Formats: sequence, C-alpha cells, structure tokens
Amino acid sequence: MCDKNIPFSVKWDNLERIGQEIKNALEYYKSNDEEMKLIVIHGGGSFGHPVAKKYMKDGKLVNMEEGFWNIQRSMRRLNNIVLDCFNSYNIPSVSIQPSSFISFERDGLHFDTYVIEKLLERNLIPVIHGDVVVDNSNDEGDFKIFSGDNALPYLSKKFKPTLGLHATDVDGVYDLNGKIIDKIDKTNISKIEKILKPSNKEDITGGMYLKVMEVYKLGVRSIIFNGNKRGNIYKGLLGKVSGTVIN
Amino acid sequence: MCDKNIPFSVKWDNLERIGQEIKNALEYYKSNDEEMKLIVIHGGGSFGHPVAKKYMKDGKLVNMEEGFWNIQRSMRRLNNIVLDCFNSYNIPSVSIQPSSFISFERDGLHFDTYVIEKLLERNLIPVIHGDVVVDNSNDEGDFKIFSGDNALPYLSKKFKPTLGLHATDVDGVYDLNGKIIDKIDKTNISKIEKILKPSNKEDITGGMYLKVMEVYKLGVRSIIFNGNKRGNIYKGLLGKVSGTVIN
Repeated sequence: MCDKNIPFSVKWDNLERIGQEIKNALEYYKSNDEEMKLIVIHGGGSFGHPVAKKYMKDGKLVNMEEGFWNIQRSMRRLNNIVLDCFNSYNIPSVSIQPSSFISFERDGLHFDTYVIEKLLERNLIPVIHGDVVVDNSNDEGDFKIFSGDNALPYLSKKFKPTLGLHATDVDGVYDLNGKIIDKIDKTNISKIEKILKPSNKEDITGGMYLKVMEVYKLGVRSIIFNGNKRGNIYKGLLGKVSGTVIN
Repeated sequence: MCDKNIPFSVKWDNLERIGQEIKNALEYYKSNDEEMKLIVIHGGGSFGHPVAKKYMKDGKLVNMEEGFWNIQRSMRRLNNIVLDCFNSYNIPSVSIQPSSFISFERDGLHFDTYVIEKLLERNLIPVIHGDVVVDNSNDEGDFKIFSGDNALPYLSKKFKPTLGLHATDVDGVYDLNGKIIDKIDKTNISKIEKILKPSNKEDITGGMYLKVMEVYKLGVRSIIFNGNKRGNIYKGLLGKVSGTVIN
C-alpha cells in the first residue's frame, strides 16, 4: 500500500481495494454463518523507513529527545490511515502499537498477546504494525525495528491459524526458469532450498529465501501471493488465491 | 489541558506551559547531575469522553464496526498532541497505548509494565493515556474505559516512585472552612475521612474523597496541587509545590 521509493506515500487505490476486499471476505463468511478471525500485520512502509533511517544508528537513537517519538509517530500515521480506511468499510478493527509493550530479548520476543486474544474473541480485528521497540537482545543496541516479519512468526506460533497470507508484489515464489512454484512441502523443500539460496541466485529470488524458509518452519499452511492484483486479498481470505502454497 | 465542556478542545497555552515546565525540571536535575525518571499520565480529557459516551453502553460497544477504533483514535489524537508538544521542547517521550496490551480482569489489571521499565532505564519518558480496553472483570461487559485513575495506582505499586504528583484544577484538598489541608498522614487521616465523606459534603469536596483515600493507601508520598497555576508543574517535579501532601 506504499511506494517505498517515495517517503510518506500511500497507494490510495490499493489501500481502498484492500479495505473493500477484507470487508467482502467478512461478508462472505457471515453469509455462510461462519466467523473469520483475522489479524492484520502491516510494515512501516514508506512511513517508518525514512524516519527510522534518520534517527537510528547501530541500534541506538541518534537524537533521543526527538528520535523515539518521531519514529513512533510516523508509524502511527500510517497505522491511522489503515485503520481509518478499514473503519470506512465497517471493518471492526483495533490498532495494536508494538512499542508500548513488545521488546527483543536474548531468548526471543517479549510479547504479551493476551489482549490480542481477547480482542479476537470479541470478533475485533487487531491491526499490528512495524514500530521501534526496546532491544535487550544484546549489549550493543538500545532499540530495534520490529517489523511485520517479526510479528508474523510469533503470532503464528501463538495462535496457530488455519492460514497465513503473505501479500507481496510478486505472484509467488519463482523457480530458476521464472515460473511460479505452485507448492512447497516436505517433498520438494530441499530442492527449493537449493534453488533459492541467496549465494546462488540473489538476483532472481529477491530476498524470498528467508521468507520461504521461515514460513515453512512455522508449520502453518501459508500462501505467498500478489497483493497488488485486484481480488487477490479477497480470494486469499477465502483460502483460494493463486500463488505459492507452503505446507 | 482540556476544557471538558467543549469536545476536542485543547487549552494550548496550558499545554505549552506544561511542556516548558517539564523541560525546565529535566534541565534542573541535569544541571545537578541527577536523573529524573518520570512517567506522565493523562486522561481522555475532552477527546475521550464524548466519543466513549457515543459508542459505549453498559460496557459494550454500541456499534462494534466503528466503535473501538473511533474511541481509540480520539484518544490517540490527544496523545499525539501531547507528545508533539513534548517533542517540541526536546522532552524524550514515548507514547504508551493501553488498548494494545492492558485489560481489566477479575483479580485486577492485566498490565505488563516490562517495556515501560526498560524505557525508563533508557531515560525515556513514557506517556500513558486514557483509553478503551478489554474488560474481563465480570460476565456483563466487554470493554471498559481505562483512565488515569486506574494507571496511577497500578504504576505506583509497581515502580514505588519517590513522589506522585496529582495535577488538578484546585489548590489541594479543602477542609470544611474552605481552607487547604497542608498534609494528610496517619495522624489526621481518620479526621480527614470524616470531613470528606461524600454523604457529608458532596458540594465542597467535589469527588476528592476517593482520590485522597486511594492515594493515601498507595503509601507513596504524593501531592495534590493546582496544575493550572504557572510554575506549579515545575515546582511539583522538584517536590516543592504548594498543595496537600499525602504521606
């Protein structure tokens, strides 16, 4: 929903479409007397990164007096935009602000998900975002960027969802011939690992290696798909979007 | 900092003064090679109340699709205003959003203060605000307003501060003759209790009874003072503002 090359830019048409498609999926399940329990995770996009870059160096705030709040505020701005959009489609959503209660520790994330669980029980949709958080994971840094890629595995392990959806700007995971790999499971994971290893083909796989391996290890059925294509978010929420299925 | 009679109003001059005085107090301690560890708590003011009133009834959201986010957003707006002001005075502050991780439970608050502690260690100033949070304290309600009066006792018990400051719009606790009571401690608490009991003199004490009793029970040296008077926030942070000292 952002153009990462332009600071503080929002692709409004994309965002509107995402809101509309989530709403449609909620309506779909409702009309079938089913419930969709959903957690939405978005990164810092074009809001978080430029500000984080300005104020953070080697895990420390360059200017503490204004650094923390300026990063936090820019993340809040994007989160406000997302929530306002969802609200305009009557999606019952709640903002979850990581910097208030999440930290990195030596043994992993400190992340109390109790309230998120209770919000889900009440059929609200927690929307969690990229943020700057306390870093206790080593002796060097004070703060660290908490990204969607941190939130997703943690929440997946806690809540064991039936489906994990990864909206990207490509159609899925490509093989060496530029074809989308339909599914990745124990039958082909070692072959896929060889294909994607950054040392081999960095240009083609574009950071997909880590994502695939992490998702695979989660043990949650997941789809990596193109979130930019009309209808794909809706189809994804119904579990039938084209992309790479990881099982 | 708000005029509670006018929705979404800010007393900008008061807010600016508060920012300036906190900054001055930080500078005072710094020039004495001391550290002031500070947590700031503000309520919903004229932002939270009108929206909460619109969307909450008997602990339930009247319109869930828009209720939670609209209350949350209005609280965030006020909190943004406070943080932006603090930031303009180079006060190193951080927003803490209760709705993300705090709930009411049968045995009290569910409130993980670990990150707040770590922020304080890094000399940042957590700014916590009134908010709408999950309510699990009974079988009736789903949500409840979390106010400054909930945050203060909880944080006091956890962090055992050397001083608790209660900025109000009166000069302290009045006795029946309209005179400020200088101090309240074990030598006069039973006398004070009799004077303040709402059944006796509701008009004079104006809700002060509960505040005084709660503060007394905390066991933290506290001052109830007039936050509207120029210089009082600064003096308060130095521990020498006029008002009622509760010990």
